[in-house]
Amino acid sequence: MPSAAFTAVPTLKSVKKIQFANTEDKQEFTKYPTKAGRRSLSRSISQSSTDSYSSAASYTDSSDDETSPRDKAQVNTHGSSDFCVKNIKQAEFGRREIEIAEQDMSALISLRKRAQGEKPLAGAKIVGCTHITAQTAVLIETLVALGAQCRWTACNIYSTQNEVAAALAETGVPVFAWKGESEDDFWWCIDRCVNTEGWQANMILDDGGDLTHWVYKKYPSVFKKVRGIVEESVTGVHRLYQLSKAGKLCVPAMNVNDSVTKQKFDNLYCCRESILDGLKRTTDIMFGGKQVVVCGYGEVGKGCCTALKALGAIVCITEIDPICALQACMDGFRVVKLSEVIRQMDVVITCTGNKNVVTREQLDRMKNGCIVCNMGHSNTEIDVASLRSPELTWERVRSQVDHIIWPDGKRVVLLAEGRLLNLSCSTVPTFVLSITATTQALALIELFNAPEGRYKQDVYLLPKKMGKSCLHRNCSLTLNDDKNEQFMKIPFMFCLSMALRFY
Amino acid sequence: MPSAAFTAVPTLKSVKKIQFANTEDKQEFTKYPTKAGRRSLSRSISQSSTDSYSSAASYTDSSDDETSPRDKAQVNTHGSSDFCVKNIKQAEFGRREIEIAEQDMSALISLRKRAQGEKPLAGAKIVGCTHITAQTAVLIETLVALGAQCRWTACNIYSTQNEVAAALAETGVPVFAWKGESEDDFWWCIDRCVNTEGWQANMILDDGGDLTHWVYKKYPSVFKKVRGIVEESVTGVHRLYQLSKAGKLCVPAMNVNDSVTKQKFDNLYCCRESILDGLKRTTDIMFGGKQVVVCGYGEVGKGCCTALKALGAIVCITEIDPICALQACMDGFRVVKLSEVIRQMDVVITCTGNKNVVTREQLDRMKNGCIVCNMGHSNTEIDVASLRSPELTWERVRSQVDHIIWPDGKRVVLLAEGRLLNLSCSTVPTFVLSITATTQALALIELFNAPEGRYKQDVYLLPKKMGKSCLHRNCSLTLNDDKNEQFMKIPFMFCLSMALRFY
Amino acid sequence: MPSAAFTAVPTLKSVKKIQFANTEDKQEFTKYPTKAGRRSLSRSISQSSTDSYSSAASYTDSSDDETSPRDKAQVNTHGSSDFCVKNIKQAEFGRREIEIAEQDMSALISLRKRAQGEKPLAGAKIVGCTHITAQTAVLIETLVALGAQCRWTACNIYSTQNEVAAALAETGVPVFAWKGESEDDFWWCIDRCVNTEGWQANMILDDGGDLTHWVYKKYPSVFKKVRGIVEESVTGVHRLYQLSKAGKLCVPAMNVNDSVTKQKFDNLYCCRESILDGLKRTTDIMFGGKQVVVCGYGEVGKGCCTALKALGAIVCITEIDPICALQACMDGFRVVKLSEVIRQMDVVITCTGNKNVVTREQLDRMKNGCIVCNMGHSNTEIDVASLRSPELTWERVRSQVDHIIWPDGKRVVLLAEGRLLNLSCSTVPTFVLSITATTQALALIELFNAPEGRYKQDVYLLPKKMGKSCLHRNCSLTLNDDKNEQFMKIPFMFCLSMALRFY
Amino acid sequence: MPSAAFTAVPTLKSVKKIQFANTEDKQEFTKYPTKAGRRSLSRSISQSSTDSYSSAASYTDSSDDETSPRDKAQVNTHGSSDFCVKNIKQAEFGRREIEIAEQDMSALISLRKRAQGEKPLAGAKIVGCTHITAQTAVLIETLVALGAQCRWTACNIYSTQNEVAAALAETGVPVFAWKGESEDDFWWCIDRCVNTEGWQANMILDDGGDLTHWVYKKYPSVFKKVRGIVEESVTGVHRLYQLSKAGKLCVPAMNVNDSVTKQKFDNLYCCRESILDGLKRTTDIMFGGKQVVVCGYGEVGKGCCTALKALGAIVCITEIDPICALQACMDGFRVVKLSEVIRQMDVVITCTGNKNVVTREQLDRMKNGCIVCNMGHSNTEIDVASLRSPELTWERVRSQVDHIIWPDGKRVVLLAEGRLLNLSCSTVPTFVLSITATTQALALIELFNAPEGRYKQDVYLLPKKMGKSCLHRNCSLTLNDDKNEQFMKIPFMFCLSMALRFY
Repeated sequence: MPSAAFTAVPTLKSVKKIQFANTEDKQEFTKYPTKAGRRSLSRSISQSSTDSYSSAASYTDSSDDETSPRDKAQVNTHGSSDFCVKNIKQAEFGRREIEIAEQDMSALISLRKRAQGEKPLAGAKIVGCTHITAQTAVLIETLVALGAQCRWTACNIYSTQNEVAAALAETGVPVFAWKGESEDDFWWCIDRCVNTEGWQANMILDDGGDLTHWVYKKYPSVFKKVRGIVEESVTGVHRLYQLSKAGKLCVPAMNVNDSVTKQKFDNLYCCRESILDGLKRTTDIMFGGKQVVVCGYGEVGKGCCTALKALGAIVCITEIDPICALQACMDGFRVVKLSEVIRQMDVVITCTGNKNVVTREQLDRMKNGCIVCNMGHSNTEIDVASLRSPELTWERVRSQVDHIIWPDGKRVVLLAEGRLLNLSCSTVPTFVLSITATTQALALIELFNAPEGRYKQDVYLLPKKMGKSCLHRNCSLTLNDDKNEQFMKIPFMFCLSMALRFY
Repeated sequence: MPSAAFTAVPTLKSVKKIQFANTEDKQEFTKYPTKAGRRSLSRSISQSSTDSYSSAASYTDSSDDETSPRDKAQVNTHGSSDFCVKNIKQAEFGRREIEIAEQDMSALISLRKRAQGEKPLAGAKIVGCTHITAQTAVLIETLVALGAQCRWTACNIYSTQNEVAAALAETGVPVFAWKGESEDDFWWCIDRCVNTEGWQANMILDDGGDLTHWVYKKYPSVFKKVRGIVEESVTGVHRLYQLSKAGKLCVPAMNVNDSVTKQKFDNLYCCRESILDGLKRTTDIMFGGKQVVVCGYGEVGKGCCTALKALGAIVCITEIDPICALQACMDGFRVVKLSEVIRQMDVVITCTGNKNVVTREQLDRMKNGCIVCNMGHSNTEIDVASLRSPELTWERVRSQVDHIIWPDGKRVVLLAEGRLLNLSCSTVPTFVLSITATTQALALIELFNAPEGRYKQDVYLLPKKMGKSCLHRNCSLTLNDDKNEQFMKIPFMFCLSMALRFY
Repeated sequence: MPSAAFTAVPTLKSVKKIQFANTEDKQEFTKYPTKAGRRSLSRSISQSSTDSYSSAASYTDSSDDETSPRDKAQVNTHGSSDFCVKNIKQAEFGRREIEIAEQDMSALISLRKRAQGEKPLAGAKIVGCTHITAQTAVLIETLVALGAQCRWTACNIYSTQNEVAAALAETGVPVFAWKGESEDDFWWCIDRCVNTEGWQANMILDDGGDLTHWVYKKYPSVFKKVRGIVEESVTGVHRLYQLSKAGKLCVPAMNVNDSVTKQKFDNLYCCRESILDGLKRTTDIMFGGKQVVVCGYGEVGKGCCTALKALGAIVCITEIDPICALQACMDGFRVVKLSEVIRQMDVVITCTGNKNVVTREQLDRMKNGCIVCNMGHSNTEIDVASLRSPELTWERVRSQVDHIIWPDGKRVVLLAEGRLLNLSCSTVPTFVLSITATTQALALIELFNAPEGRYKQDVYLLPKKMGKSCLHRNCSLTLNDDKNEQFMKIPFMFCLSMALRFY
Repeated sequence: MPSAAFTAVPTLKSVKKIQFANTEDKQEFTKYPTKAGRRSLSRSISQSSTDSYSSAASYTDSSDDETSPRDKAQVNTHGSSDFCVKNIKQAEFGRREIEIAEQDMSALISLRKRAQGEKPLAGAKIVGCTHITAQTAVLIETLVALGAQCRWTACNIYSTQNEVAAALAETGVPVFAWKGESEDDFWWCIDRCVNTEGWQANMILDDGGDLTHWVYKKYPSVFKKVRGIVEESVTGVHRLYQLSKAGKLCVPAMNVNDSVTKQKFDNLYCCRESILDGLKRTTDIMFGGKQVVVCGYGEVGKGCCTALKALGAIVCITEIDPICALQACMDGFRVVKLSEVIRQMDVVITCTGNKNVVTREQLDRMKNGCIVCNMGHSNTEIDVASLRSPELTWERVRSQVDHIIWPDGKRVVLLAEGRLLNLSCSTVPTFVLSITATTQALALIELFNAPEGRYKQDVYLLPKKMGKSCLHRNCSLTLNDDKNEQFMKIPFMFCLSMALRFY
């Protein structure tokens, strides 16, 4: 029983319609009791990949329909009812969103075109559990174009774009997802994906590990046919490594989360843009001439500093690692102690990954109007808890923007209550999601086509050079000169190049 | 009769409650007949200053109250009913908006503090006509703090933030303005401002020239007591110069529009931020790695290029002026012909001030997904008219975002229908408005306090060194060293320094 | 007698071989007595244009030949002896230097090619007085290629590259110049240029005004045939304006010094490079991480700051003009008082144009090893005089580098004794000189070909659009699009474009 | 016999005064016969660390003294003659150079001060073999200040600054080195360092492995007392790893070459400055507006591109690794094929580490005046060999600058004959050398003080956290906040911080 690896999974108090395989499972699933009902859900975004979530935020579901999708009978125009979405009639709107997304996902589109004759995923039966957004839809439809059959569900109860789910269902992809699922709904959807008559998955694409968990718990026999798992999130990858360490991983798994492209994109390049976007959308601040302190000069901090400096902010850094401090210094930033400069700052940004980097005492010393926000990895970099005390008044002035008012009238502007600004207050560009989605598609192709024995029951990073089992024909991309043709004639390189629009 | 200078003023078909002084006026006012009713209004934002407009866009008036403010009887908590706003009860919300704005308008706040004892505007009776936003409210309340009495109205029928108007009215400033005025309302409000018993304006603060126009038409005798006009907009300033040329300007006027700070801010520094903001909010595009062509390398183009380059876009320039082309080249941008590069571009931005810089033929050659937008001075830089033809399909995908679809399925993404992106799709930072508002306040102080004869009946730029008639006492700001004390001991310098938060 | 305008000219105590036209002249010429002999010469570089001087610095004249060129009989390979240079045998070396220079002066080369059939300077007899460097040689040979006859002399007694003078003389251009002329030599050379049998100049190209001065004094009748003067330097232009004001300017003059290209190049673009070059060559300093204060944020300061910031220096600014301070702030630099930061700085750079910007008291407070240098317009921005006091020790550690040692052992590193770093310690790129030289050539073409009456006896700036009298044929350069063809079909634009290598 | 590891060592044809331990050694030493005499020496700079070499280039030994130092009898002012330098009388000049260097080596100076009471190297007898420059002298004198006895020799026959060697000898450090040693001299000097009566080294500081080699060959018994080797160069480290692999390394060794600070400094930060410096000193090129292609976007390429872009060059990249290409793209550079752009380029720079990145065919297609240079790791990135063919003319125009002239007159400007530009044509800042020297000092301290058994007979990287055996007392540096005090209270961190001048 590989349950040990999953102890971190938030579980359900009561799961009505699902029968667990045995008592032990049930025990574990009730280890973290939560109050029943929708509001008690504590599924954190941090468990699944966070890329695609926030972009969903801009879509609102104006429907007043309170009927649960599970209670509705819906049929798409092809007569199929093998799906469960909010409203199949929203398909057209969703289709347009997908088409918009396609425009900045050229790598996937290229992959579709190149593989049309070859169908490297012919025979693949993929069960997927991800955020359901326009960008994921482009991925799913690419997998279908490459020959795969797909069934899909959501990895987060809030992040589904209903219209997109409808559009997928309309074209025949069995999708089970809607925005605002209950926890019971959540597991029911996963179960419907996996447990269907006459169809058994041989590939798993997961984001957060819940689908994998469910299959382990409920349908362990499925793994007999599964050729591999592709996992996207930090949490899911962590679980897979635990399983592997415990000797309980029974199929090869591909760790997409730690691929170099994802790391660079999620941190340096993405934050370079989202810090500006997040601050602007919430505060309309002018960057030019503003005094900014960035705590931490890792990849995230580097991204933030580059952007703010370029727009005329006067940026200084706090950093405890001397190598990073050295880099900050050589990049032209003053390295300071936070307490030395806190009084002068217009904006304070944390990107350290540490706890209580900004303390109550420092918040007390900030000047009136100072903006405080967090771009780091946790929600505790700013000691927000210390601000929830009687002498301070909180005033919600806009969505994601609170004024904390001191007795003397001083206001500190706190964004997203100290949670990640880039997830809460800005969108993730489709192009970034495209990089990840392409990597996922390639990982699926690689695992599905790999000769027996190449991958053991272990967790792998995507090989920099993938086998020639697919797409090997006539890629002639040579970026530098003809001598390196061979090196470049491989699909991973090819697709990255696509992503870069070198063609 | 100074009517000649005003021939460019859009006028009303029917003005019921206002009686013109004579027939000639009436004739002129009906020269540009418009259809009756609200939707036919053509008051263009371009006539008044455009700074403050767009930031109003983020506020929505959710009130369903259809009663005209003119038909309501409202009283503030002090018992006064000398105002006309949408709903006096919204004052509290508006007050908070004003307080938020104060945080990035430190120059005005400093001015308030410094002048508290002195009251350089004691005795001033200012009638004002501007956008009514939180930022203007900070200006108005600063004028009051400096000793002035103010009456205020809106320079644009759409740009009033009702809550802010309510907050001003609540504190006792007679405000006549609401969002969605009819043209009749518009002039009625102006009239109520000017024409009140027992109070006669001796200063005018205008934005667009409509207030000035009205006084010229209806109450020319007011000018006997008026010490000066401060005008903010291109259009208004243009009219003043025409009046002056025609010998019909009867008081001194201060041209705030052409002050160097305003020029730099409205163009270089503002566009540097708003190009990113506008593109991001409308398209969620990732800037890194995108091929961008910027047409025109004036101040606006320089701002756009600086920002986009800094965020990793690959920027090239088209420019016909060789000096500007030289600068582009020396700044590291490829100078190209638009037709040479149009096929490769991901984004096309116009900032030339010319017509049809992007032609239909070039639009035809753009690649799928290309984004086209305008940051220049007119609405005709992109030949949008040519896109309204039967073979092309327009699809509105978001607010301010249209897909133009070619018969072969190619989509071009057109922002704001070719109108100014920075006005339509991004906000103007409070800090920028603060610079302008401070300049307006100083211009009022200067004109009101100037010894007789210093200013003739002409249009002036704010003197770089203002007289010591006010605020002259103990400013000890010396940025560089003590030798220049004298130079710096002047309020204009002081206030700009305030704006920069040097203290 | 237009002598009044020339009172600022340093003059000679004794001029043996030259006979003045009248007594009055003589009087003026002896107004500023100097000691006889070579070392007493006070001809300041600041009087002539300074562009080309320093690049000459890298060439050393290893010749030990002490014989005065005036006493040598030299003949070139074509049998001509109408020249006076150090050593005609150095022609080959000089030719190579000219060829190297040609490679970065494409605008002139293009001008040569375009005008080959047309010869717009056919009939022009140009007498020139400039620095004699490889770059000037390219200009002279271009003028010859365009049809002109030229006679040339040096505007500075030290700046001649002997080898280049030899190369010019070898190809038949009568050159009278060598490195290390005496004052007597200086005027003798000018005289030999102007005063030659059977040849009378009809155009003057001057740099510093000495040639013009000489013609006014000695050969006023020459002006009857001269169609115009082209003047390059601040000093020379100043004199021309004085003449014009006094009604004594008897031919049209073109002010090349104030052309926009020259201003931008001499300041912003040039200093952006020369600050790095000058600091590196003298001190080998690493820029990354260094604390730098730049005094003054005009064009020169902007150039310095841009470069240093880009290389990782941490730059702050002192500035007394609030508009410039505003720009510094918006560009992301801390605006400070010098005395506040002086203790922390690694490098102090002056670019203000003011006196004693860095005082002795501030020098006293600098830290050990602080580098101090001047990029501004005068030699007095740093109070170097105050350092010449007994308690301080001066130690010359390298060329242009002095250590000033305080009693406690602290050393301050003073560059070029406070003179202009960019002139003393770095070279001026050929490309920059190319811009100026092209402008000079175009000014000559314009003045020589202008229809009678277009230019009066006044000082002109080069018209942005020049007449079509020359080079008008088939320039089809249109940078932006075809609609502006007409605007671009003019040679000035064309040549600038050439300079930019748009082709 | 650990000789196998040293087969790559260039050896001598004839070594007169040195007796090898056995025949095998001799055989190996004569494996690579070279012609006798000075000019035949082929000791490549690439074998020892290259940091300090080029800065020595700026010093010239004007002495005409042809007597070999080995034949001179010299005594310093303290009566000691245990040294061998060119001229002990040059000590004063050398002392000043050392003092200049001290000014940018604050980390070492701090180390001196902190350790004065403690003497962490008391008892250490260090034999060193490095470039002998002012910067090394600061290191040596720091080691002495920390309690060590030192004997020193040069790792390169050309790189010794004679004056500095004299200054060291004058203060009592036995130095055996001069500029222009013969190979025989070279080994003689090493031998004199190691083999001295009454003194036996217990630490080795080597740069290139020759000293280590010599001890292995001649005095293997010395290793009984040696506590460790600190090695700086790629070559030396390579040899140590070979020894270790072969089981022949008999003491712990510290690999300084691969410390993160050295890597970042030698590549990114250093090249960012040296590309500008090297191009400027050799060609006086103006960077603004120049078309530049940089081949390779690793750390070196990133440094070059950053600097050139910042100065207004228009930079594009060739890159075959898609991850690096992705980075280039996201950083705003066009990624191109070299052959596509070669015709337009003004400058071509290689930084790939590959062979023949620039081929003859591409050289043939370059435009007139194109500058070609190499910043990469080998001398073969540009196919210079192909240029040594009869139809092309080579012209040496300046030191390190050749014009290659094609039959049609086209010139290509080749720098440093394709060798490393940064070593040949620019200096290495003292600050960079300071980082390395500090690391060396810390490695010596660590190895000398480590408890027995901590380090085995293996090659180590400097631990990020060093033991508290020294300097542990009162370092209170906390860059960020007090919580991390413990982490920062270690000397390595401390010294790096010193290097950064955080204090």
